[in-house]
Amino acid sequence: MKDQFFGYIQDLQKRIISKLEEIDGKAHFKKDEWKREGGGGGLSCVIEDGAVFEKGGVNISRVFGKLPEAMQKAFQVEEGDFFACGLSLVIHPTSPKVPTTHANWRYFEMYDKNGNIVQQWFGGGQDLTPYYLDEEDAIYWHTVCKNACDPHHPDFYSKYKKDCDTYFWNAHRNEGRGIGGLFFDYLKPTSDFSVEQWYQFVISVGDSFLEAYVPIVEKHKNEAYTPAQREWQEIRRGRYVEFNLIHDRGTHFGLKTNGRIESILMSLPPHVQWKYNHHSEEGSEEEKLIKVLAHPQDWI
Amino acid sequence: MKDQFFGYIQDLQKRIISKLEEIDGKAHFKKDEWKREGGGGGLSCVIEDGAVFEKGGVNISRVFGKLPEAMQKAFQVEEGDFFACGLSLVIHPTSPKVPTTHANWRYFEMYDKNGNIVQQWFGGGQDLTPYYLDEEDAIYWHTVCKNACDPHHPDFYSKYKKDCDTYFWNAHRNEGRGIGGLFFDYLKPTSDFSVEQWYQFVISVGDSFLEAYVPIVEKHKNEAYTPAQREWQEIRRGRYVEFNLIHDRGTHFGLKTNGRIESILMSLPPHVQWKYNHHSEEGSEEEKLIKVLAHPQDWI
Repeated sequence: MKDQFFGYIQDLQKRIISKLEEIDGKAHFKKDEWKREGGGGGLSCVIEDGAVFEKGGVNISRVFGKLPEAMQKAFQVEEGDFFACGLSLVIHPTSPKVPTTHANWRYFEMYDKNGNIVQQWFGGGQDLTPYYLDEEDAIYWHTVCKNACDPHHPDFYSKYKKDCDTYFWNAHRNEGRGIGGLFFDYLKPTSDFSVEQWYQFVISVGDSFLEAYVPIVEKHKNEAYTPAQREWQEIRRGRYVEFNLIHDRGTHFGLKTNGRIESILMSLPPHVQWKYNHHSEEGSEEEKLIKVLAHPQDWI
Repeated sequence: MKDQFFGYIQDLQKRIISKLEEIDGKAHFKKDEWKREGGGGGLSCVIEDGAVFEKGGVNISRVFGKLPEAMQKAFQVEEGDFFACGLSLVIHPTSPKVPTTHANWRYFEMYDKNGNIVQQWFGGGQDLTPYYLDEEDAIYWHTVCKNACDPHHPDFYSKYKKDCDTYFWNAHRNEGRGIGGLFFDYLKPTSDFSVEQWYQFVISVGDSFLEAYVPIVEKHKNEAYTPAQREWQEIRRGRYVEFNLIHDRGTHFGLKTNGRIESILMSLPPHVQWKYNHHSEEGSEEEKLIKVLAHPQDWI
């Protein structure tokens, strides 16, 4: 399974990069291969100062070896070996009219002293963070997410949609980071659902990403915007930073396990603002977004 | 003691605001009074878009009541009442030639069921975060810090200077947030050092703040700078954000105890950048700063 899934994300990384470069038409992804002390490494692919994408990373990693202490604690297990691989992406478009997106698909194995698998699971998801709310986009995004889930289980979409709203909750602000999508973790094989079935589910979601995001980018990428709208985007990006640095388990985990800093923090937006006590005007488009973030909707 | 110290920080807030407004010459501090559910409140004073100061806050608060659960856990105590007051400031100048500064002086009391004090302590300090290293400034800043400490105990400066370097350590970057200053916490009365003696020490430090910071601002505020130097400042401000949101105990504590978000996060800089894998040029002024941040110096 680990080779099968790593092969999948290697191919998916290529597909995503190629499509995003085609949309951008100006910038190209720079490739950074890195090695991890202790075993494994990754390939970080980063685009900056594009025509459409101001900053974005589409990174894969495949790491293994002795389970780091922080992971032993987190999983409440003894010493042992592990294997983890995943694709993680964050795309920050230049225009405030085009939403930011984040996605991640990953697989994990833990072994006993004899090298037998004692634990294995998938995790991941994809979510959308608009700066202006386009309800049609929100319905479209969630419909693609639902279509990726439905063939695998009738309850998956509603469960992982709720889990996404819960996970990407900026608790100190009482609002969601964005309008959600899917979030799942610890998808372990059971008598009902084999590891192969989870794999099929996860790659369905992975395969749906471009279908979900690309039409939204194409629809808005040439829309005009004002400096005030750009400022609003930079202020909202501040909330993105707050979520990632204060609440995101993935970020904390990466930092605690001596992950590659530049790959972990490539998720942070390029230009960001913090204004004291900023509030959007009543009845404005900005306020419309905030209301939806404070009360996650059922889009379908 | 609680009234004595609160009176001190009320007066100190006025002195600091008045001096900073005089230096800025353009913007004024806006005053925001707030109340805390459960007891107490504060006065946040924020300056934005000044001639010298792009964003800064000089806040006092005085809160009391039932000890919040998060504090019970942190201090490993049972239910009870508490009192806390403090002044907290962060100043982000517009020019990359003028350092950012942060300072904080606070006092805490905890009571048993009968209202007797069971714990009391002072905490605080002041530290400097330059974007370009001026060694003369660093020596001057630390000399003022040392002079504030020396009359109280010959070891205080070296101890609290080290504690400052340790506390403001951006572990995931392997570098200090700035060039330090003083940091102390849990200054509790003992048979050697009374609460009154700690008070005298803490107000010595508080009184030294303007003496330490103002001449550095005056020296650099009219220096020319390039867009590239401004960009460098914004990138370095990103590290400031990283420290405050990932590592700062004060920030986490405020967020966990439902502190006033805008007052807690007023420490975040106004305009910030994150570039992927940014490195300064060998032999440059930027690299000179990084080298010192990675290896805290003895400035005196």
